[in-house]
Amino acid sequence: MNKFNLRVSYRDTDQMGTVYYANYLVFFERGRSEFMREAGFTYRQMEELGLFFPVMHAECNYFSPAKYDDLLTIETSISELKNASVVFAYKIKCADKLIADGKTKHPLVNRSFKPIRIPQDLKTLLEKYINANE
Amino acid sequence: MNKFNLRVSYRDTDQMGTVYYANYLVFFERGRSEFMREAGFTYRQMEELGLFFPVMHAECNYFSPAKYDDLLTIETSISELKNASVVFAYKIKCADKLIADGKTKHPLVNRSFKPIRIPQDLKTLLEKYINANE
Amino acid sequence: MNKFNLRVSYRDTDQMGTVYYANYLVFFERGRSEFMREAGFTYRQMEELGLFFPVMHAECNYFSPAKYDDLLTIETSISELKNASVVFAYKIKCADKLIADGKTKHPLVNRSFKPIRIPQDLKTLLEKYINANE
Amino acid sequence: MNKFNLRVSYRDTDQMGTVYYANYLVFFERGRSEFMREAGFTYRQMEELGLFFPVMHAECNYFSPAKYDDLLTIETSISELKNASVVFAYKIKCADKLIADGKTKHPLVNRSFKPIRIPQDLKTLLEKYINANE
Repeated sequence: MNKFNLRVSYRDTDQMGTVYYANYLVFFERGRSEFMREAGFTYRQMEELGLFFPVMHAECNYFSPAKYDDLLTIETSISELKNASVVFAYKIKCADKLIADGKTKHPLVNRSFKPIRIPQDLKTLLEKYINANE
Repeated sequence: MNKFNLRVSYRDTDQMGTVYYANYLVFFERGRSEFMREAGFTYRQMEELGLFFPVMHAECNYFSPAKYDDLLTIETSISELKNASVVFAYKIKCADKLIADGKTKHPLVNRSFKPIRIPQDLKTLLEKYINANE
Repeated sequence: MNKFNLRVSYRDTDQMGTVYYANYLVFFERGRSEFMREAGFTYRQMEELGLFFPVMHAECNYFSPAKYDDLLTIETSISELKNASVVFAYKIKCADKLIADGKTKHPLVNRSFKPIRIPQDLKTLLEKYINANE
Repeated sequence: MNKFNLRVSYRDTDQMGTVYYANYLVFFERGRSEFMREAGFTYRQMEELGLFFPVMHAECNYFSPAKYDDLLTIETSISELKNASVVFAYKIKCADKLIADGKTKHPLVNRSFKPIRIPQDLKTLLEKYINANE
């Protein structure tokens, strides 16, 4: 599991006074990026090699609203790893309060958006994080 | 079902050259707003009366990427209507191609964020749209 | 001058209850896109031909806050047209109230981000809109 | 001058492969928030006291595009401090390269959006940062 801290900015809020619901998916993406950095292979490097993780499914459960200037912790792990796809799982917390959780499913594709098998070296890096969230 | 057209702006894209994944939830919200307008009770009016639909769950399936300047159609309907919550269902299309679908679940709350029963007049308006998406 | 209507979405607001300040630049961009469409050469077509208008300067004056669900009018014109750059000018109104105005300056660049002269056919299209905002 | 590091997220980019132009104003806002925190009075506390800094003018000059995963430094200082308004100045750098600079002008207003004088204790905190960017 990767843990990453993120400060809620003003732009993340909406007129309800809390974080706009789509922005939790943005926080998930930040968690995913930091996860890959910790795993040893940044997403930027992946893209430079012509490997992309587009999203085929995303979901989020909202438990307690985050607010402007909150310091959130994003916990990211792998909940499923197949030959050609991966599911990331996320928990967003503020101190010990659970704000939201969710997951995103990604096929691996090449520059032509064709699905491809996850290379063994990348798979080995990701395997270490399976179930690490439980 | 409410149908609503929306032009993809440059800000909606990311460096993959397609719409950033969280922005489909923004499009759902635009669909929801236009749905309420058609139903006869805008979300702005609801908020002025102290009625809010925060999101407790959101999910999205991505089928085909939308691109800058695409003219999308957002189809919004009700897939579930209970005493104190509602589930909106969405389809996003570009011409006849399905881009994404999804749903969002909302409790009705008052200004103190306390869950409340959906008033009968609002319920009556929403009931007309149940299953209209099938 | 191109006139274009735009509905303020919930995501455009922040916790002050009005449109977040950076989003007026998003509205300018929407105006720019619709301007180019009316001029007869969409920005999407420009990019397909390898012509880009990155931004080198942007400014915005805020007069009166726009709110969720407001129907805004974006007025876009050209205030300056040189051999290798263009300045777009914008006014954002809600009914007859001036919400914001501003401008953005853009060099024309090719796929390698090298500045290039504006082709005569594009220049001819743009010239028609000079000072049209006055 | 306050210095603050910020990682560019995927959502900040657009299809040109670089940061979308309005998002530099979002980075300015992040700098402003961190500036206030360092000055000893967070913007969140200000709002709780009924003090707001809406934006009346913003401008940005773009020198070199920032990219996904860049670690940017936002430098924020005060370039002008009057009885009822303040101008923040910003520089955004990536390593030693200047990415963008700009400024934002803010009146101080109360909950009713009425302009008010900047209280002496707040003014004293801000005065320390005048010209600190030169």
